[in-house]
Amino acid sequence: MEIASELKIDVRYYETDKMGIVHHSNYVRYYETGRSQLLKDIGYPFHLLETNENVMMAVVSVESKYRMPAKYGDVLRVVSKINKVPQAKMVVESEIYNEDNVLINFGKVVLGFIDATTRRPIRCPESLSKLIESLMK
Amino acid sequence: MEIASELKIDVRYYETDKMGIVHHSNYVRYYETGRSQLLKDIGYPFHLLETNENVMMAVVSVESKYRMPAKYGDVLRVVSKINKVPQAKMVVESEIYNEDNVLINFGKVVLGFIDATTRRPIRCPESLSKLIESLMK
Amino acid sequence: MEIASELKIDVRYYETDKMGIVHHSNYVRYYETGRSQLLKDIGYPFHLLETNENVMMAVVSVESKYRMPAKYGDVLRVVSKINKVPQAKMVVESEIYNEDNVLINFGKVVLGFIDATTRRPIRCPESLSKLIESLMK
Amino acid sequence: MEIASELKIDVRYYETDKMGIVHHSNYVRYYETGRSQLLKDIGYPFHLLETNENVMMAVVSVESKYRMPAKYGDVLRVVSKINKVPQAKMVVESEIYNEDNVLINFGKVVLGFIDATTRRPIRCPESLSKLIESLMK
Repeated sequence: MEIASELKIDVRYYETDKMGIVHHSNYVRYYETGRSQLLKDIGYPFHLLETNENVMMAVVSVESKYRMPAKYGDVLRVVSKINKVPQAKMVVESEIYNEDNVLINFGKVVLGFIDATTRRPIRCPESLSKLIESLMK
Repeated sequence: MEIASELKIDVRYYETDKMGIVHHSNYVRYYETGRSQLLKDIGYPFHLLETNENVMMAVVSVESKYRMPAKYGDVLRVVSKINKVPQAKMVVESEIYNEDNVLINFGKVVLGFIDATTRRPIRCPESLSKLIESLMK
Repeated sequence: MEIASELKIDVRYYETDKMGIVHHSNYVRYYETGRSQLLKDIGYPFHLLETNENVMMAVVSVESKYRMPAKYGDVLRVVSKINKVPQAKMVVESEIYNEDNVLINFGKVVLGFIDATTRRPIRCPESLSKLIESLMK
Repeated sequence: MEIASELKIDVRYYETDKMGIVHHSNYVRYYETGRSQLLKDIGYPFHLLETNENVMMAVVSVESKYRMPAKYGDVLRVVSKINKVPQAKMVVESEIYNEDNVLINFGKVVLGFIDATTRRPIRCPESLSKLIESLMK
């Protein structure tokens, strides 16, 4: 079982570089934007984590594979997935497709949880892990 | 009298766009980077304002004039100037020159001061206005 | 008469800064994104200008007024307007509203036209100015 | 043997996010900025590749590990390394240290070479691979 969410992203002009394609750093931002939507879709937007639990998410690692370029004007489809109930860490995978439905980029982001006051690592708050667990069934 | 500060900025690849030149939005970031250096140079870096006075600076308006493009690899010279002792507002002007010493961009940024706790507008803290006044003499 | 276009923009996490609000440089990018939508809406997307007419648009000046901050999670409404048939220059104004319908930011961008090969300034291609003229009636 | 290059990067205000730290996407940009410096240091800046060989570099994959956050005002030291003579691909590793000389981030970027005209993958131009080989001895 997995949780998945889709988001359409219009490539913006300022995201291109002098090669005429989307600069590679922007995919890391697309992952975040998709991840943000995923959490919104399951009813647990980022800011609730901070407001309700005093918890922030910190990026631990990013892996990104580039298969094909994207261009200004492209409408990309970002599919964000969680495959495992988060405990110490949460893993979100992102598949980015172009309008021909070709997978052009793949990302895997590992996130940790930190206490917003002490800035020390903690486990995933139960309110979030239980929710994800219930949705995976 | 005026206070001025110079900063060299190497154009970074990701700052270019598909026209092959620095995307226009980055100049607003160059102004900020130069302004940050100006305050550091006079011994009053941004973060002191927040730490010592609980004050933040908020941008009120930006004017930007683009005369010539910049390219990846260019080393720009950003000259930031304050011409008037700040009271309710602080005005910083930025002149950006290329390696041929041609003025390629001009910016004018008006900043306000806000109480970091209440987020309400206040006057420029005396510690900063007095410092600028003394340097202008 | 004027031409207007609306675009909803979800504030992205990476667009915030340490003050907890959208960094001021991003509004210049919102103007562009809205402008891009305006041209798409009237049936003349940016890339056609380049493909059909070998013409690029270059930013000549930007004015930006900041009235209220935006935060992560906000859905902004960007209204882009052209009030005059472009000749040597094209002026696009942007009004940005928050969800309470409060005008939080105002922008005015002046664009010039350049021959994509010679990179020299030219007048607005007739295909675009005539279209705008007809839509304004 | 390896080739290494160092670059100091001042964290810029706009690179921070609402957590008060450098947004994770910027490290990918720091890698590029360091890589750009590395190639400049060995006498083969990016743009020569394009001008002399009609070759562009495309990012194939990025791996990024985040150990500690960076803040506005930090001066980071980016160490970029090539450990192997590039053939089909070039691998550049980046170590980012803070002012306490603590490794706060590690990146590994794999780059491919493409013909700038056909946009098809090619091997590393000999002018570059021979240069790197000679420097590694």
